Amino acid sequence: MQKLKDKILKEGTLRENNILKVDSFLNHQIDIAFMNEIGVEFKNRFSNVKVDKIVTIEASGIAIASIVSQHFGNVPVVFAKKTESKNLDNEVYKSKVYSYTKGKEYDIMIAKKYISENENILILDDFLANGAAALGLIDLLRQAKANIVGVGIVIEKSFQVGAERIISEGLRLESLAKIKSLDGKIEFK
Amino acid sequence: MQKLKDKILKEGTLRENNILKVDSFLNHQIDIAFMNEIGVEFKNRFSNVKVDKIVTIEASGIAIASIVSQHFGNVPVVFAKKTESKNLDNEVYKSKVYSYTKGKEYDIMIAKKYISENENILILDDFLANGAAALGLIDLLRQAKANIVGVGIVIEKSFQVGAERIISEGLRLESLAKIKSLDGKIEFK
Repeated sequence: MQKLKDKILKEGTLRENNILKVDSFLNHQIDIAFMNEIGVEFKNRFSNVKVDKIVTIEASGIAIASIVSQHFGNVPVVFAKKTESKNLDNEVYKSKVYSYTKGKEYDIMIAKKYISENENILILDDFLANGAAALGLIDLLRQAKANIVGVGIVIEKSFQVGAERIISEGLRLESLAKIKSLDGKIEFK
Repeated sequence: MQKLKDKILKEGTLRENNILKVDSFLNHQIDIAFMNEIGVEFKNRFSNVKVDKIVTIEASGIAIASIVSQHFGNVPVVFAKKTESKNLDNEVYKSKVYSYTKGKEYDIMIAKKYISENENILILDDFLANGAAALGLIDLLRQAKANIVGVGIVIEKSFQVGAERIISEGLRLESLAKIKSLDGKIEFK
C-alpha cells in the first residue's frame, strides 16, 4: 500500500533495537481518515473471504479493528485483553505472549462466549515482528475451534520471523507494508 | 440515550463491588454499528463546540473515540498510555491514576507533541465512576495548556463521585446513560 509506505517514510522514526515508531498516525495518535483507507485496502485483499468477526489485541489494534470493521459490514470486533482484571469473565481462553517491546511475558485472554466454533475470524494487528502476539491470538482462536480466515497486518517487519511463523501455521497473511530493514534507515521489501 | 439504556438492561450483567459488565458491546466485544449511533449522539450533544482532537485512555476508550471521531470530521484521536513501554517518547506529560477495578495505581502519559496549547479537546471514555481516569486526563491536558471543551462518557455511575468531580472542575460533562444504583439491579437516574 503505497500511501502507507509514504506515511511511514515521512512520519516514522527509528529507535534502537529495530523499533519503528509510527505514533503520529497508528500507535498513539490515530489518523482516522487514514484508518478508513486501510480498511478499504484490507477489504480489497480479503474480498473473497467470509468474515464474521474481527479479533485483535489491546491496545493499538483496537482502533484499526474498529474502523476496518466498517468495511466488512460492521462485523463485531473482539479484542484480547492483556492482563487479568477483576471484571473480566472467568470463562476465558488464555495464552501466553512474550513482549519484546516491554521485555516481559503476559497472559492474553478472550471470554469464551465471544468466540464460537466455526466462526470465521479475521485477525488484525498493527505490527508483526516476532509474531508473538499474533501466535497468541491464533492459539486462543484454535482453542475456540474458530475458523481463522486470515491475518491482516499494517506493518510487517519482514526481517523478523513473525511472517514465516504465521505462514507456516497454514494461514493467509496480508501485510500492507513490508519492511526489509531498519538498519539506519527504513527500507521496504 | 434510550437505546443505550435498553442495551445495558438487556446485555449488562452485575458483579460484586458495583461492577457493571457490558462486555458484549463496549468493553471486550465491540458493536461497531452501535458505536456509530453513540457517535451521532455525542455529536448532537456537543454540536455547538469546536473539537480539534479527541483524547481518551487505553484500552476500551480507543474504540469509542475512533468511531466517534468520524462524527466530528475525522479529528485525530490520541489515547493516553497506561504503562511505560520502551517505545514511548521520552517527552511526555504524566499523571497518576488509581484504578479501583484493578486495585493499583499506574501512570498515564501522552507524548507532548500530540497535544498543543489552546487545542480544543473533547475527552471521551466508556465509564465514569470515581473519575480517576478522567481526572488524570484532565491533569495531562492542563499541563499541555489545552482547552478542554467537554467530557463525554458512555456510562456514568451517578452514585459515585466522578461526575461531581468533573463538574466541580468547571467542565461540561455529557453522559449518555446515568446509573443511579446497581444494588441488585440496574436503575437509571
